Amino acid sequence: MTSAAGTRAYRRLSVEERRSQLIDAALSLFAHRAPEDVSLDDVAEAAGVSRPLVYRYFPGGKQQLYEAALRSAADALQLCFEEPPEGPLTRRLSRALDRYLAFVDEHDAGFSALLQGGSVVETSRTTAIVDGVRRAAAEQVLSHLGVTEPGARLRMTVRVWITTVEAASLIWLDEDKQPPREELRDWLVEQFVAVLTVTAGRDPGTADVLRDVLSQEAADGPGL
Amino acid sequence: MTSAAGTRAYRRLSVEERRSQLIDAALSLFAHRAPEDVSLDDVAEAAGVSRPLVYRYFPGGKQQLYEAALRSAADALQLCFEEPPEGPLTRRLSRALDRYLAFVDEHDAGFSALLQGGSVVETSRTTAIVDGVRRAAAEQVLSHLGVTEPGARLRMTVRVWITTVEAASLIWLDEDKQPPREELRDWLVEQFVAVLTVTAGRDPGTADVLRDVLSQEAADGPGL
Repeated sequence: MTSAAGTRAYRRLSVEERRSQLIDAALSLFAHRAPEDVSLDDVAEAAGVSRPLVYRYFPGGKQQLYEAALRSAADALQLCFEEPPEGPLTRRLSRALDRYLAFVDEHDAGFSALLQGGSVVETSRTTAIVDGVRRAAAEQVLSHLGVTEPGARLRMTVRVWITTVEAASLIWLDEDKQPPREELRDWLVEQFVAVLTVTAGRDPGTADVLRDVLSQEAADGPGL
Repeated sequence: MTSAAGTRAYRRLSVEERRSQLIDAALSLFAHRAPEDVSLDDVAEAAGVSRPLVYRYFPGGKQQLYEAALRSAADALQLCFEEPPEGPLTRRLSRALDRYLAFVDEHDAGFSALLQGGSVVETSRTTAIVDGVRRAAAEQVLSHLGVTEPGARLRMTVRVWITTVEAASLIWLDEDKQPPREELRDWLVEQFVAVLTVTAGRDPGTADVLRDVLSQEAADGPGL
């Protein structure tokens, strides 16, 4: 998404292509700077187009562009937890977390600004988008657990683990991306098995789920 | 803090007393309603004073009053984790969580509005106040662990557990305060021991801390 490429393509893009080009340019700017430090001029320049053209596509200005970029990031994050329902659970979670943490790594400043709140462009709509990602991730994890109607305690365990993933990602960014990404991933998977085990000690429904999950683990899996 | 009490005391309060009376009235309103649903008139009425009087103390209006109420709530939350450094860790955490969850219970709507973001009165200052509570709670837990210079992995474990407490509290409010508060408290304490154990498996410094902690547990403690 260089200026040169943008200029070259100025007249040839369809409306949809142009729109996604602008969103991509915005997303890559919002990824590494706080929203308040990104101007519409920056987006126009990154996309190699004029400022009026950006306004034609996003008459709501920066707020609208930010929300569109956020929605596109949310779609990408939601895809992270989609994984074929095959093989040990810990392997599936590892692959999902590999994608999630790669996204966090690539969108570091934007991820922090969004989740740490207090941003000038934060609204109830941006909060709802972020909540949608959390809910979708929890649903995916529950479906990997083979559960269609989770009890309240299991649901809380999964939702809390999703916030653990989020909080650990923020702290990881704050700690200059230490420990290495793979270690963070394995730690999070082990945390999941541990918190599920705690809940299983109090809740027979979760104990059944845990038994099924562990019976499918490989002997060298992180869950055993 | 009824209107009658406020009116009766109208002329007798000192500046400091009046200020805290207004903050208390604001806090009890913000506790059960979203900030956007509380007006300065509501605060004046709850405190039994005139609207101009509220403005005299808080010329910045609702935003300033909200921040003052939030700061007072933050002080109360920070006190929750203060606990004499005696006895088994799990007992100390149980007592801290008893206070924390009682606060959450008493300030339900305000706690949710604040932490779920997207509020119209949220600013980088309110976010900083909330972050301060998290940091103070993490420091308290580390001091209960007897650690003065925690390694990065132990620090991350404690910080992540603090967000677990927060997230579980929000979900608990969302689920009509189920399971019972005592069960939530015990579950959170067990979670702490479980996540500490996971980190201890990878980090010798945390393993040393965990060994010390477990050696002080009672035989019937939740950590064993």
